[in-house]
Amino acid sequence: MSKRPTIHLKSGEDRRILGGHPWVYSNELQMTPEAKAIPAGSIVTLRHADGRPLALALFNPRSLIAGRIITRDCGAVIDSTFWQARLERALALRERLIGVPHYRLVHAEADGFPGCVIDRYDDVFVIEASSAGMDREASEIAAALDALFQPRVILLRGDGPARELEGLPPRQEYLKGSLAEAVAVSENDCRFVADPAAGQKTGWFFDQRDNRALVARLARGRSLLDAYCYMGGFAVTALKGGAASALALDRSAPALERAGEAARLNGVAAAFTARQGEAFDVLEELARAGRRFDVVVADPPAFVKSRKDFHQGARAYRKLARLAAACVAPDGILMLCSCSHNMPADELLRQAQRGIHETGRHARLLYQTGAAPDHPVHPGLPESAYLKALTFAIE
Amino acid sequence: MSKRPTIHLKSGEDRRILGGHPWVYSNELQMTPEAKAIPAGSIVTLRHADGRPLALALFNPRSLIAGRIITRDCGAVIDSTFWQARLERALALRERLIGVPHYRLVHAEADGFPGCVIDRYDDVFVIEASSAGMDREASEIAAALDALFQPRVILLRGDGPARELEGLPPRQEYLKGSLAEAVAVSENDCRFVADPAAGQKTGWFFDQRDNRALVARLARGRSLLDAYCYMGGFAVTALKGGAASALALDRSAPALERAGEAARLNGVAAAFTARQGEAFDVLEELARAGRRFDVVVADPPAFVKSRKDFHQGARAYRKLARLAAACVAPDGILMLCSCSHNMPADELLRQAQRGIHETGRHARLLYQTGAAPDHPVHPGLPESAYLKALTFAIE
Repeated sequence: MSKRPTIHLKSGEDRRILGGHPWVYSNELQMTPEAKAIPAGSIVTLRHADGRPLALALFNPRSLIAGRIITRDCGAVIDSTFWQARLERALALRERLIGVPHYRLVHAEADGFPGCVIDRYDDVFVIEASSAGMDREASEIAAALDALFQPRVILLRGDGPARELEGLPPRQEYLKGSLAEAVAVSENDCRFVADPAAGQKTGWFFDQRDNRALVARLARGRSLLDAYCYMGGFAVTALKGGAASALALDRSAPALERAGEAARLNGVAAAFTARQGEAFDVLEELARAGRRFDVVVADPPAFVKSRKDFHQGARAYRKLARLAAACVAPDGILMLCSCSHNMPADELLRQAQRGIHETGRHARLLYQTGAAPDHPVHPGLPESAYLKALTFAIE
Repeated sequence: MSKRPTIHLKSGEDRRILGGHPWVYSNELQMTPEAKAIPAGSIVTLRHADGRPLALALFNPRSLIAGRIITRDCGAVIDSTFWQARLERALALRERLIGVPHYRLVHAEADGFPGCVIDRYDDVFVIEASSAGMDREASEIAAALDALFQPRVILLRGDGPARELEGLPPRQEYLKGSLAEAVAVSENDCRFVADPAAGQKTGWFFDQRDNRALVARLARGRSLLDAYCYMGGFAVTALKGGAASALALDRSAPALERAGEAARLNGVAAAFTARQGEAFDVLEELARAGRRFDVVVADPPAFVKSRKDFHQGARAYRKLARLAAACVAPDGILMLCSCSHNMPADELLRQAQRGIHETGRHARLLYQTGAAPDHPVHPGLPESAYLKALTFAIE
């Protein structure tokens, strides 16, 4: 432990961290030549300007988020046993909240794994590391998973802009076993099929579990349009819950294949229709053709990928709200989702309000929901509550 | 209709209203002597500065919110038939969302009744009017309720700061029938007893229905502390859902009486304990005595009653979070609620985070929820989403 590299905060920069925030920004640190020379992803002792120890952190001199605190116990040994204790805690919470072994087991900072998520498909675990520290710790974490779960497969995936910000190349490798085929997903009494090795992110979006259940309750006996359906999560859950019909819309043919397969797997294929196309175009066409749905869900990919896209993205949400609202039957329901980190909830509501207002229809906001609780939020990082779902009744 | 008084916007002040906002502030109007002489609560034609008609509004020259738009159809006849059509719409939404005839039937602007709520206890309806316009329209609204529901009782209640801002005195009168005793409330498979004539607000807080169900799910087989329990909504719902025990805490002896009665009514009295006292004092005492609960709910009255109370109220939420968190068992749950209009969700989370952090325990935010959907929000008035509930897992 005495060999651990040390970094020092600048004087007066410790207040936020003492208040519980888990990040240290590079401009708050004394970026000496020694600090800059520490390999990205190293575990370091973070000290006050006067030298007193404050926390252990994952350090990356190349990242704006230079330090990610892993524990305030500066004497802790960080090895697979350390990570296993955190996994046990994360597991206990999921077992309390979710009835099946299919969930996000670890949700980054909130679960004490800064910049790392782990999704569980029964005996298949997918680690997505987006910080240099977690990338470096991957084999220790895999060892902890192995000790706790004896899984069949541990897959490490990492790509996307968060890794780029940390100076990390894309990475995909099996740390245990391998996948010859897709995996089953159990959710809300439905079964789905996901592909952790080739699908988006880790293969399935567990974050929408509760919102899918909500839509299913609202769509009982009614018609549903599932725009940006991906693998049919909303459509199939609603049909299984008693919806009269569902039209699932996506640009991706492979995703629609999977959605159709899920409809068959759940015995609801007769009421399921797939439609390939760009959502904006197809929504406009459906509205023009007078097609109306009792419930419309629009769950697009992030329109605001970075802060500079904000205005363009905001306009896209507004347009989507307008086009989707135009397809809602009288006194129907619209759920508009955003998974953009950079789209705050109040701004999304503002854009949705404007978009719906442009259709000349009065809306009532019924629910403002977020990600399912296996995606907990670190209270010091409220902005990490990336998923927003607004559910309106539209006259 | 040609006899309707007219008010004119100042030039350039129509943009927000054209965008769907339902209020006109007094400084946006041409406050001529004629306008000032219009009786408070009159229905007026709101016109652009150039004279074009824009909407019909409830007008109160004495209020900062001088105009409350009721319809954009300037030719509409505003009578009991008009209000009945709005009630039918409100009813259809509640019947879709809620399985029993016990709910908030009308939630103000969102349902087209600006400044007016109506709660329904089966055949008993309670109107709470807090704008001069709705106060004046009360008998027309009562006639509409009568035509649609043939209720046994229609009670009009109005008091509190919102009425004061409108220059209205407190008012309480039966517009139909009368209540000799308390009424039954059916909610989440539980039965409660409320007193619309003498209880707080309209007698029952329907807004917490879904949060009570959420707590019941989280508390199955576990111990619960229900701080500020009022009539035992959280405690009894949790016990009925399988909680092992519940301690219900309130300063009001009559409220605790009702809570105890509800526990007996639902067959869970054996696991129910009442404790009278000030929550801050009792929480501190429980923590000192080492009492811990698997689930703690703290649902206080509004600590921030007006903007000038903000800092004092924010400190009170922070203190409550600290005291309540100290009573949470290891890996337990805390739900902290605020019904303060003037306490934004992000600020409540900030205070909660600080309060919990002061106990030295790590928290994960699982749910950010609001009022049940029979309390819809007008999308132009996001700040009217007054109820916030933060649910944490606490290590």
